[in-house]
Amino acid sequence: MIARDALLTDLYQLTMLHGYYRHAMNDTAVFEFFVRKLPKNRNFLVAAGLEQVLEFLENLRFSGAEIDWLGTTGHFKADFLDYLAEMTFTGDVDAMPEGTVFFPNEPILRIIAPFPEAQLVESRVINLLHFQTLIASKAARSVLIAGDKLLVDFGFRRAHGAEAGILAARASYLAGFSGTATVCAGQQFGIPVYGTMAHSFVQAHDDESEAFLRFAQANPDNVVLLIDTYDTEAGAQKVVALAPILQAAGIRIKGVRLDSGDLAEHAHKVRQILDEGGLRKVTIFASGGLDEYQLEIMRSRQAPIDGYGIGTYLDTSADAPYLDCAYKLQEYAGVPRRKRSEGKATWPGRKQVYRRFDLDGIMIGDTITVEDEDCGGESLLQRVMQSGRPITMMQRSLNQIRIDTQDQLNTLPDALKILAGDEIYPVVISDNLKRLAQRVDEGY
Amino acid sequence: MIARDALLTDLYQLTMLHGYYRHAMNDTAVFEFFVRKLPKNRNFLVAAGLEQVLEFLENLRFSGAEIDWLGTTGHFKADFLDYLAEMTFTGDVDAMPEGTVFFPNEPILRIIAPFPEAQLVESRVINLLHFQTLIASKAARSVLIAGDKLLVDFGFRRAHGAEAGILAARASYLAGFSGTATVCAGQQFGIPVYGTMAHSFVQAHDDESEAFLRFAQANPDNVVLLIDTYDTEAGAQKVVALAPILQAAGIRIKGVRLDSGDLAEHAHKVRQILDEGGLRKVTIFASGGLDEYQLEIMRSRQAPIDGYGIGTYLDTSADAPYLDCAYKLQEYAGVPRRKRSEGKATWPGRKQVYRRFDLDGIMIGDTITVEDEDCGGESLLQRVMQSGRPITMMQRSLNQIRIDTQDQLNTLPDALKILAGDEIYPVVISDNLKRLAQRVDEGY
Repeated sequence: MIARDALLTDLYQLTMLHGYYRHAMNDTAVFEFFVRKLPKNRNFLVAAGLEQVLEFLENLRFSGAEIDWLGTTGHFKADFLDYLAEMTFTGDVDAMPEGTVFFPNEPILRIIAPFPEAQLVESRVINLLHFQTLIASKAARSVLIAGDKLLVDFGFRRAHGAEAGILAARASYLAGFSGTATVCAGQQFGIPVYGTMAHSFVQAHDDESEAFLRFAQANPDNVVLLIDTYDTEAGAQKVVALAPILQAAGIRIKGVRLDSGDLAEHAHKVRQILDEGGLRKVTIFASGGLDEYQLEIMRSRQAPIDGYGIGTYLDTSADAPYLDCAYKLQEYAGVPRRKRSEGKATWPGRKQVYRRFDLDGIMIGDTITVEDEDCGGESLLQRVMQSGRPITMMQRSLNQIRIDTQDQLNTLPDALKILAGDEIYPVVISDNLKRLAQRVDEGY
Repeated sequence: MIARDALLTDLYQLTMLHGYYRHAMNDTAVFEFFVRKLPKNRNFLVAAGLEQVLEFLENLRFSGAEIDWLGTTGHFKADFLDYLAEMTFTGDVDAMPEGTVFFPNEPILRIIAPFPEAQLVESRVINLLHFQTLIASKAARSVLIAGDKLLVDFGFRRAHGAEAGILAARASYLAGFSGTATVCAGQQFGIPVYGTMAHSFVQAHDDESEAFLRFAQANPDNVVLLIDTYDTEAGAQKVVALAPILQAAGIRIKGVRLDSGDLAEHAHKVRQILDEGGLRKVTIFASGGLDEYQLEIMRSRQAPIDGYGIGTYLDTSADAPYLDCAYKLQEYAGVPRRKRSEGKATWPGRKQVYRRFDLDGIMIGDTITVEDEDCGGESLLQRVMQSGRPITMMQRSLNQIRIDTQDQLNTLPDALKILAGDEIYPVVISDNLKRLAQRVDEGY
């Protein structure tokens, strides 16, 4: 389901490899992935996607059909195609663990490999890290607002394709969501899957109460009734009327769902109807056009809503649908390198990020250093793959990653937890790294 | 590569199917897919994704592993799982051909099938139609601005996953782009693939000229040199100096690429350097942060740029990363239905869209009617699948779809071709359709 095709790359990677091959440029290259700057509504980012990157690298190999197809393009000579056919990923990877909070210019992944291997994988490595990091970072904002309310990913249908839907489910679960509506993501990653009924179920019956009854009979352990197809409060009254009939059949109504109109206002009215009908334990779940900004409004209006389905705005990261990120060559054949293009200059060499905390365990500042420099604090990049094989002791279950991510979010200063994106966390560049950049420039 | 798993669905589809199964609700259902309203920067949309929808429907079947996994969730009884295991899609599909220009409330796809089948496929049908329509609609805007300049999709790395990258390449090609950098999309769909070199190729050499020389030697038929790694105009001078050396080796420099800074200003300077160096035929290709708004600026500044690589903003449809679209039950068991939820009411029944043109062939207005009503003009929805099988004579190659899409864009009124999204095209609801909606409401 998560694609691993070696041709998931840009053509220029292959034409460059053609050059490296012809000129035997096979020395060790070091590339690092980082985000250049935060989108305007973000105070921090949450690293995600590493597991899929490592799976891609470990399994990298051109299929016979791919090599044959490349031959038909006329771009490449036969000896080069033979070389590609034998290629695997044999390099090392250092990375921040998934769920780590990070900031601009901090590398979250470093690949150290023979140049052609490190180059070829650029496109898919960015593609995988970018998207899950984008979604985890967005989802964490809802998690911080929602407290212990249930959050469920509802976004598959408007995610950008199947893989986006499945990976959005993973990234939002990792960031603290309780689950997803996307069945495939449950099968693939063991994420809890939620869902009961849509409007079409109600519409297909001549009577709304009959629809509720039939749904409950077929799914007695999962009765959450969608009550807004025609009139939300009238729907709530029907639920109250139905409850004793279902109870007689041993079926308990777990909740109702609202999906349109002024959700806070409807929730207050529906709560009152349910409570007066003796259904105090029946929960209210809301969906429809929700995101972290709407959750904050619901909180301020004290909406009696127990859980939220968050769809389109989450899975497309609608207020910030991409990150300004890059995967850049920092060293080749033992020599630190940097790009100096206008507005896109990078810090050269292999780097480490150190984080310092106050006595309460709250993060107070990061330093980006050259790799072997110890600035004190916690070092965030760790070796996760050696010679093309993931390091087993560094692997965690998705549930463990999710727990660790919550620990990470608990170390955030309160100022960074707000939705407005104007808070700047202190990240400094070490003097040694600045000196290295200067030496690289002078050496050019 | 384009996923076809039956579990690419929301859990509520399966719990609803559980209900339909228990209560033998197997009558014919009619669902239609439409967009509720245009995003703020769009005057029209371009239908895309139908081919992938039909492939999904034709091949729909739960695998043994999927059925086994569903069993482990505890939601479903064994007889229902046996029923799912036998399920295929046996219905009919009516649709607007890919590449058709369309507007809010106009159905672009209708599924007519036994209720459980039409219900199950909702999530993936929306997922496929939504994304390619989103991208084709965005790409068409660049095509209208760019005239006959070369446009290439560069967006894979920041597309939302692999499938998004590949389908964005298809949707933008369909809308008039010349090709993509994404190799997999070339293999999958026969789309022309473009690409030469990145900054890392230059950075790995101690000397920029040596990098250019080596690239040209390895790829003599595809020499487009990236000249902005250190200093754009200095890079152009190096190209001029290198040209005679390469010419002596029988190698022609096709172009240079700019990827940073003020692209229009650099292009003017680089054009002058190349021209004065006798390289009038060497083209200038630009990339980096481009979209249709930037193309319009380049045009107004008369930038001497021959082609553009458009990446992130295209593949994420950054200014409008989703469409407000829906797939709604319009008829069940022969009875028209509608949803009346606040702000989400729909027009009931099976519908047709008629388009009228002026004497110059420019579109002047659409009418949404009940299916069997003839309002004159061209009817846009056609039968494309019968009893679960695509109708062969309705299938077109991607290149033919691309040509037909250009014909469609040529019928757009000039007022709709501008980038600002405030022009409203006249779409009226026929009196018969309004009367049907009233009858449905009264019948409830």
